[in-house]
Amino acid sequence: MSEVWKGFKRLTSVEKASESFVESLHIQPTVSEVIDLERAYGRVLAESITSPVDIPPFNRAAMDGYALRAGDTFGASSTPVLLKVVGEVRPGQRPVIAIGPGEAIRIQTGGEMPQGADAVVEVERTREEGEYVEISVQVAPFRNVSKVGEDVKANEVVLAGGTVIGPFEIGLLSEMNMKQVEVTKKPMVTMISTGRELIEVGDELRGGSIVNSIRWMVRAMVEEVGGSFSYAGLAGDDPTELARIMDESLTSTDVMLTSGGTSVGETDVVKRALEEVGARIIAHGLNVMPGKPTLLAFLSNKKPFIGLPGYPVSAAIASRLFVVPILERLLGIGGRRQEPLVRAKLKRKVPSKPGTVHFVRVHLERSEGRWMATPIRVTGAGIMSSLVKADGLLVVPADLEGYDKGEPVDVVVIKKYLPSPK
Amino acid sequence: MSEVWKGFKRLTSVEKASESFVESLHIQPTVSEVIDLERAYGRVLAESITSPVDIPPFNRAAMDGYALRAGDTFGASSTPVLLKVVGEVRPGQRPVIAIGPGEAIRIQTGGEMPQGADAVVEVERTREEGEYVEISVQVAPFRNVSKVGEDVKANEVVLAGGTVIGPFEIGLLSEMNMKQVEVTKKPMVTMISTGRELIEVGDELRGGSIVNSIRWMVRAMVEEVGGSFSYAGLAGDDPTELARIMDESLTSTDVMLTSGGTSVGETDVVKRALEEVGARIIAHGLNVMPGKPTLLAFLSNKKPFIGLPGYPVSAAIASRLFVVPILERLLGIGGRRQEPLVRAKLKRKVPSKPGTVHFVRVHLERSEGRWMATPIRVTGAGIMSSLVKADGLLVVPADLEGYDKGEPVDVVVIKKYLPSPK
Repeated sequence: MSEVWKGFKRLTSVEKASESFVESLHIQPTVSEVIDLERAYGRVLAESITSPVDIPPFNRAAMDGYALRAGDTFGASSTPVLLKVVGEVRPGQRPVIAIGPGEAIRIQTGGEMPQGADAVVEVERTREEGEYVEISVQVAPFRNVSKVGEDVKANEVVLAGGTVIGPFEIGLLSEMNMKQVEVTKKPMVTMISTGRELIEVGDELRGGSIVNSIRWMVRAMVEEVGGSFSYAGLAGDDPTELARIMDESLTSTDVMLTSGGTSVGETDVVKRALEEVGARIIAHGLNVMPGKPTLLAFLSNKKPFIGLPGYPVSAAIASRLFVVPILERLLGIGGRRQEPLVRAKLKRKVPSKPGTVHFVRVHLERSEGRWMATPIRVTGAGIMSSLVKADGLLVVPADLEGYDKGEPVDVVVIKKYLPSPK
Repeated sequence: MSEVWKGFKRLTSVEKASESFVESLHIQPTVSEVIDLERAYGRVLAESITSPVDIPPFNRAAMDGYALRAGDTFGASSTPVLLKVVGEVRPGQRPVIAIGPGEAIRIQTGGEMPQGADAVVEVERTREEGEYVEISVQVAPFRNVSKVGEDVKANEVVLAGGTVIGPFEIGLLSEMNMKQVEVTKKPMVTMISTGRELIEVGDELRGGSIVNSIRWMVRAMVEEVGGSFSYAGLAGDDPTELARIMDESLTSTDVMLTSGGTSVGETDVVKRALEEVGARIIAHGLNVMPGKPTLLAFLSNKKPFIGLPGYPVSAAIASRLFVVPILERLLGIGGRRQEPLVRAKLKRKVPSKPGTVHFVRVHLERSEGRWMATPIRVTGAGIMSSLVKADGLLVVPADLEGYDKGEPVDVVVIKKYLPSPK
């Protein structure tokens, strides 16, 4: 395969491209919008959230038992102290009675502590007798009490802008009684497919045709990271038609993609269309395999353009390297994506071409308490099934000549569920 | 806190409970349904998928160039061989011309190889002159050709039942021209909240009230793993009212949850309601912190019931330990969930009570090329903000007395994005 892409006059370093291209875009997060909490999962906070309230909003009993003055339990043990029961507080009620010395009040978990009380003795350490309760344990102040503001203090910044909203963030927002939340808008990704051999899924498979699968794969990748996806259609192999569709989508999209038409030759439709619409090409051809015929450009309005290769595996790698980080910035996500890694021992040698970054699809399995990685025997960037069979990706940096059998390597796990250990 | 839950007569081992409870349910995946591919992301295949077609469906050119007989290039080098150009194949067209000896045909990437041709020479290694083309490289058979079925063979099982459908699976399904796919139905989880102190988000915060946040957190956890969530309302603290709501939801749900009301005392509403509806209690009180007052039961129709504790952090841990694995089985997911782990060095000692499994919330940061884990200084199961501040969870097994400062530990990463290295 080594001379396959010789047509590219100069390859751009993929490491350099993925940093400098994304950096040079100076991406600002999208404008924000206010949405209901029930639609907030997976969205990104546009601004920091300051709590309007203390949580808990009052000193709360953390146990069922008796609220009292901790000082009154001094010396209590198997010889109990006796306190007068002056009433009851139930959760959700504001206590109307205050506690004096020598007094106690029945309280349930979650109940608001009455004035004067500073501790709760759990019901198991007590015995009620007529108007009195025997307390058989000595407690310190605030024992079994959740103090006002111990979870969140009013005016405290509890969530930073750029936080991705997950189940716990939703819990905290609801706890602060926030029914709505301000998030960054979902960035719009518009994709145009090229290639006269393509038909759409559900169309009749005519001779010479293949289904446009990259459209569906990339849509899922875009939506997974939090973007919106718009498909602008099939442009065949006519640069003028492609340029026309590009022009139409220019103002409504944050990121523009094409698939196919980036290889060197007479069907190099994408490059010619970009020239027609006045885009500036930043890189055409990267030292990455699969993914070599990727094209990076700025559109005339400075928005990013990524020309994905026409082979599915190449398109997947190029999407992961460029589309995903651009979306993360448009979404305003703070922090660095934490790829799940496992350290595995290679079951076979992995050859690679120095100067090229290789993404090697591997099987993972547990064996004798460690992970073993077996490279999947395919080279073609068109073998979509290899991505489905793979449990992980092994990245071979450009400065290595592959890895030896038995070498320990870090594998990026791409499946959430792996085969159970045998 | 150690005597807080002494009221539980016998604690069930959480490791045992999480395996034996889930096992003893003998869960079968939900019935299947057929859905459109565009809604398939995150769903689980009900059955194995056998490809109806070869992919590619024909021998395809993998390059722009000339399709020819590999044998005709024998000896080609800087001294080229000359072949007669007999036409052109464009992608999406069925080739009408066959290739004879000494002949070549112009072909574009993705084009169907004409009869007689078995290799493609890339355009860069050729020069067309009048009716002839000079070929300056010798190629082997199937050079630059994607062979019919090299990605997927007709009648091959390409995806196993139980596969979670991600972007690559969607790509492969579309490639096979499958517009619809059979998946397991989303299991229904019904939740009833208890606690008279609770109000719903958006309600006015009256004295003594707190917002029902567990409802929203658990909903997000259920939907994240692939379930549907139905909220059946607030049952206050009346066992009969709770039993009535349980009865109403019994037939329509796959899993039933409550929050709160599982602690020992007069508000132990859940246990009494379960007795009213004839449920069998399997465990009440687990040796896990947070999460101790968890209640596990079978409903009268053998469906699983999990009584989540009323404190948010406890409810989160109990949901992760019981609700998530039950949903994974109802969904029919194959394989084992791969929690993202990092090995980190502890910045502080982590004390724990032997005999109890502790879930310790930790900060993670990169320092000098390694991960450092700092336990978050909270003990309360009510501190929802601690889950939001945490980057990971450190599990201290029951047979340990905590970890020492400086010890290397495996931390389950709970955030997708972590602070960038300083």
